[in-house]
Amino acid sequence: MKSIALLTDFGFADNFIGVMKGVILKINSNINIVDISHAIEPHNITEAAFLLKNSYKYFRKGTIFLTVVDPGVGSERKPIIARTKNYLFVGPDNGVLSLAVKEDGIERIIKIENKRYFLKPVSDTFHGRDIFAPIAAYLSKGKGPSLFGRTLNSIKQINIPNPKIIRNRLKGEIIHIDRYGNLVTNIGKDLFKRFIEKKKFKIKIKNTKIDSVTKSYQAVRKDQPLAIFGSFGFLEISINSGSAKKHFNANKGYPITIAI
Amino acid sequence: MKSIALLTDFGFADNFIGVMKGVILKINSNINIVDISHAIEPHNITEAAFLLKNSYKYFRKGTIFLTVVDPGVGSERKPIIARTKNYLFVGPDNGVLSLAVKEDGIERIIKIENKRYFLKPVSDTFHGRDIFAPIAAYLSKGKGPSLFGRTLNSIKQINIPNPKIIRNRLKGEIIHIDRYGNLVTNIGKDLFKRFIEKKKFKIKIKNTKIDSVTKSYQAVRKDQPLAIFGSFGFLEISINSGSAKKHFNANKGYPITIAI
Amino acid sequence: MKSIALLTDFGFADNFIGVMKGVILKINSNINIVDISHAIEPHNITEAAFLLKNSYKYFRKGTIFLTVVDPGVGSERKPIIARTKNYLFVGPDNGVLSLAVKEDGIERIIKIENKRYFLKPVSDTFHGRDIFAPIAAYLSKGKGPSLFGRTLNSIKQINIPNPKIIRNRLKGEIIHIDRYGNLVTNIGKDLFKRFIEKKKFKIKIKNTKIDSVTKSYQAVRKDQPLAIFGSFGFLEISINSGSAKKHFNANKGYPITIAI
Repeated sequence: MKSIALLTDFGFADNFIGVMKGVILKINSNINIVDISHAIEPHNITEAAFLLKNSYKYFRKGTIFLTVVDPGVGSERKPIIARTKNYLFVGPDNGVLSLAVKEDGIERIIKIENKRYFLKPVSDTFHGRDIFAPIAAYLSKGKGPSLFGRTLNSIKQINIPNPKIIRNRLKGEIIHIDRYGNLVTNIGKDLFKRFIEKKKFKIKIKNTKIDSVTKSYQAVRKDQPLAIFGSFGFLEISINSGSAKKHFNANKGYPITIAI
Repeated sequence: MKSIALLTDFGFADNFIGVMKGVILKINSNINIVDISHAIEPHNITEAAFLLKNSYKYFRKGTIFLTVVDPGVGSERKPIIARTKNYLFVGPDNGVLSLAVKEDGIERIIKIENKRYFLKPVSDTFHGRDIFAPIAAYLSKGKGPSLFGRTLNSIKQINIPNPKIIRNRLKGEIIHIDRYGNLVTNIGKDLFKRFIEKKKFKIKIKNTKIDSVTKSYQAVRKDQPLAIFGSFGFLEISINSGSAKKHFNANKGYPITIAI
Repeated sequence: MKSIALLTDFGFADNFIGVMKGVILKINSNINIVDISHAIEPHNITEAAFLLKNSYKYFRKGTIFLTVVDPGVGSERKPIIARTKNYLFVGPDNGVLSLAVKEDGIERIIKIENKRYFLKPVSDTFHGRDIFAPIAAYLSKGKGPSLFGRTLNSIKQINIPNPKIIRNRLKGEIIHIDRYGNLVTNIGKDLFKRFIEKKKFKIKIKNTKIDSVTKSYQAVRKDQPLAIFGSFGFLEISINSGSAKKHFNANKGYPITIAI
């Protein structure tokens, strides 16, 4: 069976996600619907783009990603389908798809225009239900993207801030904080290795210095800080059996420096 | 494949929903189980009835709605099945099903009595698991409602407060607040149009007056209030890129007046 | 269709659960994936073990339980498969599986070692995605546990505190608090009946005394405390239409005494 994977900022308090699933199943009842997350901070396009980029490749080839973080709903922003090398992505053209589709390799972008496939009437505020969900469902039944509109030449891009090297310092920042309070930085494993080579180093966050990267949380004593390469492939700052977010009182955007 | 759609106040902290799904899949493993919401305020029958009414019609004909907001579990309230024109509804007879089944058209009400289909022993506190989930699963396998008990002539009704017209004022109230802090009123689009005709109007909430209904959140400047017809079909008060709940410090039941 | 049931402390803020489901569906797309709960308190092995023990038996024979509460990820703790009389359990050997597998009857324990079935590279922090999810998926396709490693003789045990009888007092404690604020004790129905026989009794929590066990929350007046046997099979302290957690300001571990 094919899969449609959902990523939204709709939360769980309302019936939004359930209704979108109802719409999908009305069109195609032979489908696996998977929730990636619905707890994206409301309107936070960058957070959703980051999670989508770090999720899509774990899914089966042909999976359809339905991503709705859409503060511009009802305005001029375009609803789009992006066909990449291995997947299909459906959502608003506000950058939320851009990190994932760029990595997988864009093959075609379609502006969704064919109203025949929309729910009627189309509401002013919930295109997730009225446009994106039915389009994803028809795609999952094998309908080709070109059926739904005309080709676009480009999509809106967003960027995750890149770390910078200034002399003997690698300067990064916190780009995500997970449920355990682990601080995910934008410093990837390859960059880290190239920068450090085999030299001694100190990772600085606030007044704390960490001089090694461990392979498990329990490599340091309970409640002690540590650095580890996390599941996103980035350097993370953690506390064994605790929350680094609380310990450091740190938020997204907070700087991390590595000195050699 | 058929669907069973769940709506409860069980939350996500416990194993309640997972266990109900286990019970359903033990009886019928060829079924799509969809969560409408489990974040209904504990024991808030009216909120669940409102969300059910605004969800059911997006689902495929024949879907079974399993709705458990059940403060009277273990008392004399009746477990029921309601067959409507297009769907089946299962839940306690406390009003939670009443808005949806009335709208779709009641064809038959059955009081669930046939203990042969219950889990044993039936607990005093969790009929969702022991009575409602197995009945929904057997219905999804094609068993007829009359197998489970005898016909009732009526069900318990609840009502959402209706807006009132007093001279040149239309007086409504907030009946739902969504995850973004949008204030959903009980003023429907048709009523609004009939009342306004083509006259000028002012929508009043607290000390704020809004004199138009927009088609998108971005039709006003950032952090400014606006009125829009939302996905429920009701007039909503919102803040572009913000929370109207926070901005107005408003709760359910708070009045909205439209003056011409 | 077979089921894989998930129980983790991953929460809903990240993409962890969605990605694990993607990994499972890539290997076996003909599977029902059911969430038992993902809201286990981070690293709380005992809470997860308690919920697993009180969930598994409601699922169809052959269901695979994928349980990941894993503070020791990356350290020496062993990844295991436990085959019991009716089910398969996959998770870390830290006690989280122990209550359920002991009750259902252990038939075989396998230490997961065969890297051929892991995702590559295996991360240091997310064995749920890289080891446990693929193993569960291969098991669901009918691959035998012995394919994945060698037999172990024992697993790590944990225990829920047992109530004690001291003269004419039965002393228990709160072991779980559910979403409604009901206080679940460790006093089971059988023990209670044997202790009380047909004598009069008083259940004491803080300064409150309750002298009967009711069959429904509504058996007492609104906002009044009551004792009831809950869906876990244990004695629970509740408030009709309210939260006993708030009323008593009680936490896990808080004592309950029954005096005859």
